[in-house]
Amino acid sequence: MASPAIEALVQQLARLPGLGPRSARRAVLHLIKRRETAFAPLLTALTAVHETLVTCQTCGNVDTSDPCGICADPRRDARSICVVEEVADLWALDRSRLFPGKYHVLGGKLSALDGVRPEDLAIEPLVRRVAAGGVDEVVLAMNATLEGQTTAHYITDRLEGLPVRLTQLAHGLPVGGELDYLDEGTLAQALRARRPVG
Amino acid sequence: MASPAIEALVQQLARLPGLGPRSARRAVLHLIKRRETAFAPLLTALTAVHETLVTCQTCGNVDTSDPCGICADPRRDARSICVVEEVADLWALDRSRLFPGKYHVLGGKLSALDGVRPEDLAIEPLVRRVAAGGVDEVVLAMNATLEGQTTAHYITDRLEGLPVRLTQLAHGLPVGGELDYLDEGTLAQALRARRPVG
Ligand SMILES: [Zn+2]
Ligand SMILES: [Zn+2]
Repeated sequence: MASPAIEALVQQLARLPGLGPRSARRAVLHLIKRRETAFAPLLTALTAVHETLVTCQTCGNVDTSDPCGICADPRRDARSICVVEEVADLWALDRSRLFPGKYHVLGGKLSALDGVRPEDLAIEPLVRRVAAGGVDEVVLAMNATLEGQTTAHYITDRLEGLPVRLTQLAHGLPVGGELDYLDEGTLAQALRARRPVG
Repeated sequence: MASPAIEALVQQLARLPGLGPRSARRAVLHLIKRRETAFAPLLTALTAVHETLVTCQTCGNVDTSDPCGICADPRRDARSICVVEEVADLWALDRSRLFPGKYHVLGGKLSALDGVRPEDLAIEPLVRRVAAGGVDEVVLAMNATLEGQTTAHYITDRLEGLPVRLTQLAHGLPVGGELDYLDEGTLAQALRARRPVG
């Protein structure tokens, strides 16, 4: 066996999604063999992010500043807000560089099964953000799952009466598919063909 | 896009074996969402290993102490030395708990293609270790590859004349297979059926 410190590191890495105990061990060996060229830079990058990590109080994005880089960017169109379930979805959409507006992260989706209620998500902050004015369009970019669409319906109801156009991503998305796993082409098509809700 | 600090972290993680850009991004999101329960413990574990990492001057194992835990362990039989190509192989064999002796890590294998010569590997230190006495058996546990077996032959020649029994892992190992990927059952069988060389 390796030393307790190394075994503890393998266990921590094995908890990351996509890494099991075996690949975590290989990753540790990779780092150990490249102490200066891989281990030190990774440690520096992790420390930098860990020390500066903050949740944007405006949109729920996680970034190293609050407001986040997107909320603080004057070139982004504040009149359009894209609502997503998770930070991962925000990143996936934003990597595509197709949406020029701002975002709003719900922090999950309504789920009777998991006991997730409207008050567990950042839905009220979204309503307040839209009610504050200056927003023309809210793009509902929930996953194309039953729970994602239930969440979209709920938000549609909550925003009713506010002077804002609601759209949602076109369902060229594969049914049951999750945004974060889609290629940019699919995302682009879904975004281009977004349509009014209700 | 996420902040430059987060993008830098994704890039560092994506360089680990078994992780690509996509899974690195998911890993970062996983950490970011679990700052106290996952991110902080991982950072602590990485820092602890990085600060104490050292190569054992006796056997070439990488550990948090020198001599390493195996070399320092009086319950391990110093009369038997198992020679492996890489630290990964040492760990794989040692996890099986089947070999009660010590180890010797070569740091690679002879390879005309990659320009790896005998002086690039820890072969002379092995010869000195055996020549110093107190060693009854040297188990050659190279990979069952052409280069691994070439290395084993070379070491066999170099140890000729020294009063030591040379054995090698039985080739129940799949041809072309690499030690580090084998299940413990295969390793156990290969170790049990080890046979004299030459
Ligand atoms: Zn923000
Ligand atoms: Zn050692």
